[in-house]
Amino acid sequence: MRIARISLPTPDGPQARIVVQATDESPLVDVRRHYGLTLQRRGATPQAALDVAGQVVPGSLAAALTHGDLFLDALRAASEDTSGDAVAGEGPLLSPIDPASFRDFLAFEEHIVNAAHRSGGTVDPVVYEIPISYLGSAPAFIGPEATMPWPTYARSRMDYELELGIVIARGGRNILPGEADAHILGFTVLNDFSARDIQLREMGGRLGPSKGKHFASACGPVIVTPDELDPHHLTMTARVNGEVWSRGSTSTLMWSVQEMVAWASASEPLLAGSLLGSGTVGRGCGMELGREVRPGDVVELDIEGIGVLRNTVGHPDGQGWTPTRRPAVLTGD
Amino acid sequence: MRIARISLPTPDGPQARIVVQATDESPLVDVRRHYGLTLQRRGATPQAALDVAGQVVPGSLAAALTHGDLFLDALRAASEDTSGDAVAGEGPLLSPIDPASFRDFLAFEEHIVNAAHRSGGTVDPVVYEIPISYLGSAPAFIGPEATMPWPTYARSRMDYELELGIVIARGGRNILPGEADAHILGFTVLNDFSARDIQLREMGGRLGPSKGKHFASACGPVIVTPDELDPHHLTMTARVNGEVWSRGSTSTLMWSVQEMVAWASASEPLLAGSLLGSGTVGRGCGMELGREVRPGDVVELDIEGIGVLRNTVGHPDGQGWTPTRRPAVLTGD
Repeated sequence: MRIARISLPTPDGPQARIVVQATDESPLVDVRRHYGLTLQRRGATPQAALDVAGQVVPGSLAAALTHGDLFLDALRAASEDTSGDAVAGEGPLLSPIDPASFRDFLAFEEHIVNAAHRSGGTVDPVVYEIPISYLGSAPAFIGPEATMPWPTYARSRMDYELELGIVIARGGRNILPGEADAHILGFTVLNDFSARDIQLREMGGRLGPSKGKHFASACGPVIVTPDELDPHHLTMTARVNGEVWSRGSTSTLMWSVQEMVAWASASEPLLAGSLLGSGTVGRGCGMELGREVRPGDVVELDIEGIGVLRNTVGHPDGQGWTPTRRPAVLTGD
Repeated sequence: MRIARISLPTPDGPQARIVVQATDESPLVDVRRHYGLTLQRRGATPQAALDVAGQVVPGSLAAALTHGDLFLDALRAASEDTSGDAVAGEGPLLSPIDPASFRDFLAFEEHIVNAAHRSGGTVDPVVYEIPISYLGSAPAFIGPEATMPWPTYARSRMDYELELGIVIARGGRNILPGEADAHILGFTVLNDFSARDIQLREMGGRLGPSKGKHFASACGPVIVTPDELDPHHLTMTARVNGEVWSRGSTSTLMWSVQEMVAWASASEPLLAGSLLGSGTVGRGCGMELGREVRPGDVVELDIEGIGVLRNTVGHPDGQGWTPTRRPAVLTGD
């Protein structure tokens, strides 16, 4: 099953719709429309069916997933529909998940080693002991074909990061690795855009990457359910303007998908509709290759069995606030 | 105006309600009830008034703030009501904001200097150049009088952090400092609980604090609107089991409240209902004092003009997954 979101025109302007495909050759089925027709067949008036279907299958996939099996059953039923009654309209793809939260891990050893060497540092042994992660900006997600907004505070050294995304269907707390599969909706392609100049400066403040990452991430084109692929054996490729820059495999993950779900939920709530990132595969970003992307470049991230996530690097917009240096009262710097 | 949330019993179990006070001596007014009565006086049927009031004034303050002036006008009108018709029922206080997102800054120089010295490091000059911040776990917020859940993976060195919280009423992007006041709902007391053993270990991975912070933060007891106080001249005090451990002032902030709002919104969406933290005031946590809190300790954070946020440190629950060490294939560690 492949889950996506598209934008359809309505009298109130564009509206996001959740769509589903049984296979990548099946027609896209509009899940809300399918659910509404099902309710009508079960005796609901057309208006009541519309109202309830709009509630159970909103445009936000994260909001839909808060309904638990009520939504997941509607999704599954739509994927099995062969009647053609609820084929989706034509519209551009959106980010398949508008995440409730976004936690990005550091689960590929080669990327950790390369990043440490590039910044003149060494690898702290803790990266082998704990799945290291930080929280990214969930509302800054963009979808397939969207233009990455170049942040006002970044001058150069823009980068992509080639990652596997894990979408959480059912929330939980203290989920064990052996229980994790029941919480996973599926997998998507994730690009954690990174403005290396500000990222590396601000990491000196010891709270991790922040504004150097939070301006945009992309995911898509679809979410593929776990029955269709083995997330630990997928080839990953990045192309910039058609040239292959990165190639790797999820088989080099240090922490399994199930362990990442477990650690993300350890002693804190992991919400339905959350997105976890694997971190960058080895040699899966320009920094590791001594390269950077520039305005107008087209970045394609391709994961076997999922698809190609294509985005264009935007132009600087230059409209924001720039901090000015504060006096160092206590250190005399 | 002082904004809080309380829990009231209903036939469906406890329900969160947004309440408001004109001053700290006024009765608490139930904003949903007040708005519903207003709609009835303007011709709505009792059921329609209940339905619309439930939609415009949900139990979640973050969700209510997504309605913009529709909710803010209802809040203001309830605070001005002297009829007594919508006095709130009795119930325990909840976290006044269930934040849409939580960004915590490092805006007090003395804390930065003390933390660097305690961990054997030096202060990176970048902390004077950029407001450094990280994203915390928004769904892990607890309210006044709640017990802090001790995370399964922390053994000792539990700590509090004494901070000012800034609640965002209106979302925005690239907000300038001179525009920030129009986006601020008010101020609250914030305790960014920190498990120092795991926090300091995982910070070696260079992505900042994560599981050492994300298990719980607390805020409350109320949100006080900007017309009632000057956020840059407030005395801040922490007491543990009644003993004063920390005392400081927001007058020592390096970055103003308005500058934090500007930087949080620079080139990314800052959502209505977000919470920003000032970071810890100088000597505002046990780490800076060579002390730690233990299960059963009562931590009271007190900010002048806002109130006292009291929480009890919980006991370890020990039910989660513990990562096991991975082989270091590339570094030979």
